[in-house]
Amino acid sequence: MEFSELIKTATVEDVLLSRQGLPAVRGTLCITSHHLLLSSCPRGELELWLLIRNVDAVEKRVQNLGWYQPPRSGGSPRDTRVAGSSGTITLRCKDLQVLQLEIPGMEECLNIASSIEALSSVDSVMMLYPFFHRPPSLRLQQGWHLRVPERHFQRVASQALLRSSQPLTGPNRRRCREDEQLLGTILGEGERGFVLDTRSAQAAKQARISGGGTEPRSGYPRWRRLHRALERGRPLQDSFSRLAEACAEPAVTVERWLGRLDSSRWLSHVKAALSTACLAAQCLDREGCTVLVHGAEGTDSTLLVTALAQLILDPACRTLEGFQGLLEREWIQAGHPFQVRCARSASSHARGKQEAPLFLLFLDCVWQLSRQFPFSLEFGEQLLLTLFDNAYASAYGTFLCNNERERSLCKVKESTHSLWAWLNQPEERHKYLNPLYSHNPLVIWPSVEPQSIQLWQGFFLRWIRPSQHLEEAWGEIRRLVQGNSSSLQESTGKRPSQPLPEPPAGTGDGKVGTAGTR
Amino acid sequence: MEFSELIKTATVEDVLLSRQGLPAVRGTLCITSHHLLLSSCPRGELELWLLIRNVDAVEKRVQNLGWYQPPRSGGSPRDTRVAGSSGTITLRCKDLQVLQLEIPGMEECLNIASSIEALSSVDSVMMLYPFFHRPPSLRLQQGWHLRVPERHFQRVASQALLRSSQPLTGPNRRRCREDEQLLGTILGEGERGFVLDTRSAQAAKQARISGGGTEPRSGYPRWRRLHRALERGRPLQDSFSRLAEACAEPAVTVERWLGRLDSSRWLSHVKAALSTACLAAQCLDREGCTVLVHGAEGTDSTLLVTALAQLILDPACRTLEGFQGLLEREWIQAGHPFQVRCARSASSHARGKQEAPLFLLFLDCVWQLSRQFPFSLEFGEQLLLTLFDNAYASAYGTFLCNNERERSLCKVKESTHSLWAWLNQPEERHKYLNPLYSHNPLVIWPSVEPQSIQLWQGFFLRWIRPSQHLEEAWGEIRRLVQGNSSSLQESTGKRPSQPLPEPPAGTGDGKVGTAGTR
Repeated sequence: MEFSELIKTATVEDVLLSRQGLPAVRGTLCITSHHLLLSSCPRGELELWLLIRNVDAVEKRVQNLGWYQPPRSGGSPRDTRVAGSSGTITLRCKDLQVLQLEIPGMEECLNIASSIEALSSVDSVMMLYPFFHRPPSLRLQQGWHLRVPERHFQRVASQALLRSSQPLTGPNRRRCREDEQLLGTILGEGERGFVLDTRSAQAAKQARISGGGTEPRSGYPRWRRLHRALERGRPLQDSFSRLAEACAEPAVTVERWLGRLDSSRWLSHVKAALSTACLAAQCLDREGCTVLVHGAEGTDSTLLVTALAQLILDPACRTLEGFQGLLEREWIQAGHPFQVRCARSASSHARGKQEAPLFLLFLDCVWQLSRQFPFSLEFGEQLLLTLFDNAYASAYGTFLCNNERERSLCKVKESTHSLWAWLNQPEERHKYLNPLYSHNPLVIWPSVEPQSIQLWQGFFLRWIRPSQHLEEAWGEIRRLVQGNSSSLQESTGKRPSQPLPEPPAGTGDGKVGTAGTR
Repeated sequence: MEFSELIKTATVEDVLLSRQGLPAVRGTLCITSHHLLLSSCPRGELELWLLIRNVDAVEKRVQNLGWYQPPRSGGSPRDTRVAGSSGTITLRCKDLQVLQLEIPGMEECLNIASSIEALSSVDSVMMLYPFFHRPPSLRLQQGWHLRVPERHFQRVASQALLRSSQPLTGPNRRRCREDEQLLGTILGEGERGFVLDTRSAQAAKQARISGGGTEPRSGYPRWRRLHRALERGRPLQDSFSRLAEACAEPAVTVERWLGRLDSSRWLSHVKAALSTACLAAQCLDREGCTVLVHGAEGTDSTLLVTALAQLILDPACRTLEGFQGLLEREWIQAGHPFQVRCARSASSHARGKQEAPLFLLFLDCVWQLSRQFPFSLEFGEQLLLTLFDNAYASAYGTFLCNNERERSLCKVKESTHSLWAWLNQPEERHKYLNPLYSHNPLVIWPSVEPQSIQLWQGFFLRWIRPSQHLEEAWGEIRRLVQGNSSSLQESTGKRPSQPLPEPPAGTGDGKVGTAGTR
């Protein structure tokens, strides 16, 4: 495939771009292999630079305003258009931004729309932008080998939080002696453990029909099984779509808004995920027991629970460095299938069957933690937004493919840049830091009462009601902290007690969290 | 009446005090004329100092644990109690705090409960605590004459925002030539004005039966009437009670919580009040028209609208000084009947008929503004909480009585201290400042979309899920700003661009807002 085959019209002049909350701009639209550009007239400033992979859905509406002007021989392609006809393309982006392009000429409009549709759904991973993006400040392979899982496992050798997929007992309740022995040896003399199944007892039973199942008590006598049903798959994707739609609905009443917020069930999923993570953390911290978390595949809600539990328990996971390690270990290396789960976002009703915003749910839960504990996470909301954006459409290879095997086959680490390498550059890194951070060695137990769970406005209303003032406030606080620290340094010659961001070294030491595989 | 008649038992030992989110304390309970005290055993530290006027409802439950010990002649009163009997008193406070006292001895329990009930509902204003409270740092009459309304009226002589009560047209559609002339002279040559009626057109019509009504178009040809129905009275009080109850309900599902939040309708009232204030502000600012606001009496929802409109429009109302002036002018001097409206709070279902949390609704709207514009108000959430607390139970005279006439009869200004005098002391004042404040000369137009209106957690969940961490965060920001300012001062010898709190002068200059009476 050549990109040029997909681009039917590369440039259109006199296009009107409208975005929520911003003045409309008229200019020249260009479609390249990976980007949509709009440079304004008459000053030629670049007004829009959109990664086409970020487009979730394309809606087009053409209208013929009346008369038809036949093509003249020798005329330019522009002359073939229906004079007076025009079209509007609405681009619904994966990050929930909505763009409208008014394009003169029906044919141009249809061409642009189908080009965007084709470019945004290119199947081949190796045709994606990360394989072409070469930022001058980075060199390839930088940031890819920061966190070798073996090093982490050495650190947490008396490992207490485990994750796995379901045992494959099947309808005949097959036993696996090796698995029983393995789980037996994990527990010390007289110790007991918990198996936290992220499916309902009913769903776990039903999984036997397709070869799955749960640990039978007889084979695992020292493990107590707990079931906490977490939503995944289609229902979670629908929940996300419904909430995004409700947020975008203008001029509603409070009743209708709260009704739609409620029926989206998103906040219930946030509460359930946080509650289950707290349960795992309690078993570990208060009961001192080993905990094994699994659902079916062990690559979705399982990771939600183990990653959140570590964030709650382990202060090392709450630094910017540690959080990147947590994501690398608990989401990327653990095999969360980012490519299929994040293929489409909220506006793609009933497209693929495999999309599900598990990772967004995780980021939302982290945001709830950061709101309840404004001092305890070294990173701020901006990092969470950037992670979402990059999981759904990125210039970097970090979230590409579905697992390590696919990444290795596609040579992702050799041929694309790491998002971490980009984020950790000093001039980038400071944008993601929480200016109020101060190391908190304690467990942070969140309140999971519904009254305490809030809508993540910074994400869900990002483009609708930009929280410009709140961002300015954080910017101001950041400046204050920096001013305060540097004036302290000047007057005392010492480093302040809350250290300022330091440029990270080229390699990390992987000092982070926990959780292994079986 | 003597207080001693109301206090049936003044002291009980071995009382167990339980509060939400705090460890239980055992100690000695004392009832004084105005306070309930509990000093802990064995260290004798004062654990609780509660203004009895803050008690909204008293619930008692006594239980006899078995045997009866007859009184011995010559025994102390304590011997008369039923041995093994005990009682529990639940105090629901006006500020939504809930306290539980476990009291040994059934009789003591009943005596304490009825003493608190009697003391918390003393009718006579002049028996209230403000007439006895004498803080050593203040002198009487300080802070009472800061804001003379005449001075304000001089400043805003081309007065553009007016308020009044309804015209008394009655069932016969009586006209009042003087009123028509008065409203005629307000408008300049060729000018038009808006009458913003805070009742529905239907309700305004019905008011004719009881002697009220609206301005007929024929008599007021240059005024255009707009109706925006705002809730008041009983429905608003019920809304408050329902929301407070929903907030206190433990272990609910997200669905139930959102359902109860919705059915309380509180956020709808917040949205309606803010929308109507924005409408008034738009007529003034964008149409350049004079606006007259009224409902029925002109002392409830009218004040909500005029006070909020001024806060939106006038930066002078957004300073700590200016906001006090706004409250003094638009709520206190304007005759909001604080005594009857704030007699009972959320836990007093179906008590009086005159209670209504109009002032709380105003404070909530101000909080929404402060959240949407974190730089633009000089004061923070703590001031809003303190104002609520003092409107419902206070050591100061500022919110006593229903109007200026009653305050004059009771000699409030001569015999009690002003809340403003207390708040404006340098060691108090800094607690109420917003560390991020920076003068914003612009109109602040809030978003009134339901998606932007949030539950005021700092008030409604204050005692249930204390936002200790958030408070610490603000404390930290405050320290940073102060550190930054003083280090700036040290290094440059200049005052910082964002001035730090200055002790207020003994007299003010009344440089504030607008709105007159007719």
